[in-house]
Amino acid sequence: MESFFSFLEKRVDDCSSLLCVGLDPHLPDLPEPTAAGALAFCLNLVKQTAPYAAAFKPNAAFFEQFSAEGWTVLKQVIEAVQEESHRRGSLIPVILDAKRGDISSTAEAYARSAFGTLGAHCITLSPYLGKDSIDPFIQNSEKGVFLLCKTSNPGSVDLQDIALPNDRLLYEHVALLAQSWNTKNNIGLVVGATQPEALTRVRAAVPTMWFLAPGVGAQGGELESALKAGLRKDGKGMLLPISRGISRAKDPALATAEIRDQILEIKEKIWRKGE
Amino acid sequence: MESFFSFLEKRVDDCSSLLCVGLDPHLPDLPEPTAAGALAFCLNLVKQTAPYAAAFKPNAAFFEQFSAEGWTVLKQVIEAVQEESHRRGSLIPVILDAKRGDISSTAEAYARSAFGTLGAHCITLSPYLGKDSIDPFIQNSEKGVFLLCKTSNPGSVDLQDIALPNDRLLYEHVALLAQSWNTKNNIGLVVGATQPEALTRVRAAVPTMWFLAPGVGAQGGELESALKAGLRKDGKGMLLPISRGISRAKDPALATAEIRDQILEIKEKIWRKGE
Repeated sequence: MESFFSFLEKRVDDCSSLLCVGLDPHLPDLPEPTAAGALAFCLNLVKQTAPYAAAFKPNAAFFEQFSAEGWTVLKQVIEAVQEESHRRGSLIPVILDAKRGDISSTAEAYARSAFGTLGAHCITLSPYLGKDSIDPFIQNSEKGVFLLCKTSNPGSVDLQDIALPNDRLLYEHVALLAQSWNTKNNIGLVVGATQPEALTRVRAAVPTMWFLAPGVGAQGGELESALKAGLRKDGKGMLLPISRGISRAKDPALATAEIRDQILEIKEKIWRKGE
Repeated sequence: MESFFSFLEKRVDDCSSLLCVGLDPHLPDLPEPTAAGALAFCLNLVKQTAPYAAAFKPNAAFFEQFSAEGWTVLKQVIEAVQEESHRRGSLIPVILDAKRGDISSTAEAYARSAFGTLGAHCITLSPYLGKDSIDPFIQNSEKGVFLLCKTSNPGSVDLQDIALPNDRLLYEHVALLAQSWNTKNNIGLVVGATQPEALTRVRAAVPTMWFLAPGVGAQGGELESALKAGLRKDGKGMLLPISRGISRAKDPALATAEIRDQILEIKEKIWRKGE
């Protein structure tokens, strides 16, 4: 059975990359602070970085800030990724970073919007409302979700780091729940790359799940320690989203290629040590 | 200092109502399954129910499903509420039910979208990412948030009901955190009306905070037990969102007036007993 993660792994092999290029049209980074400026910004990034992108991750907030026009742009950006995929004969998945979380018919409407109307392949979701808020997004194994588990911001300690009576932390409980729900190979976890000890804990709890691990670059996460802590034994299982580290580079294509190669080198080093 | 909840309390006094009219353009309920159908559906509801509405609550998902056109409609619906407020000389707050939750510049973009571009007065948010994911929404005391605390769906037990080492449940911990963050009188809690024991626990933990308590009607919540468990001593502190119970009624205006009066009667009864 094909699944979201079988598609992602195929793409990871095709481009030898674990990089997920963030498409975040921050106002200060745009040629002009308009929806048209956001479109130009994103199309340029897609074109320049597609050879090295295991996936693209547009963040809904930066499109939503332009209201209706922003949603038109978001759809155009996703279409541009689909065209790149077609041209290359290699499906580059689009992960809509939306962190939604709602129930029953409302969750169904969000799923319809993300996977149907917009054509994304995957979405980020909050786990706070529990299993039935996730269900409408995982019925089709070819569409996937990344559930927030341990995020990279200071406030993540408020809930996620709470110790439970069984000595597990709340985020580990979330990881184990997600693993038990992952019967179709289409659920992954968001685990910040800034905290290697959290990555180690979650990897120990769920040895085979995919992580979306933001925080390398702008947020100060250190690439090598993150990869050591979070990679699966097969050298996959971890997608590293980078946004400003690429979009603010003088040459985004070169910057993306360099980070891709850095990751390959570190993997090689880990692999040699592990022999 | 004016705050979101001082505005809401004024409106509650103006219309003698704790009703929050849900604006959820479900596809099967629309005259036609298009953005234009959603607009007609919502404008009719706003017009008919405005006299009895303490607030209106459009759910973003049902607009997002129409992509760009849906966002245009959402803005028009919020403008229609603003016009009703102006006509009546009584501000009817708009609570954007979006259950967002993201960090730093992304949260800022969502806040700009909800409060700036769309003109909503309040938004629902997930607490999973902690304090810094809430901060951008509460800087201006006149804009408010309702944080998810204990929801009315079956999956709410997966995280929210976890018992912590101090014997509190996770949702009580969230309530206490939110109370400690509520220095500008603009943070409330979402607590489902279907579970009076949860309402009782949260009310005991945070005696003065406002609750948004969905679940009466379609989801089977029982009005009297919910009000007994959740009302503050001053007979306020609880906003009851009802969507399909109103939109699917033969006469939405009459249905709204009747529920408003039912709430007043129950409050009267509770007040008499309490003497």
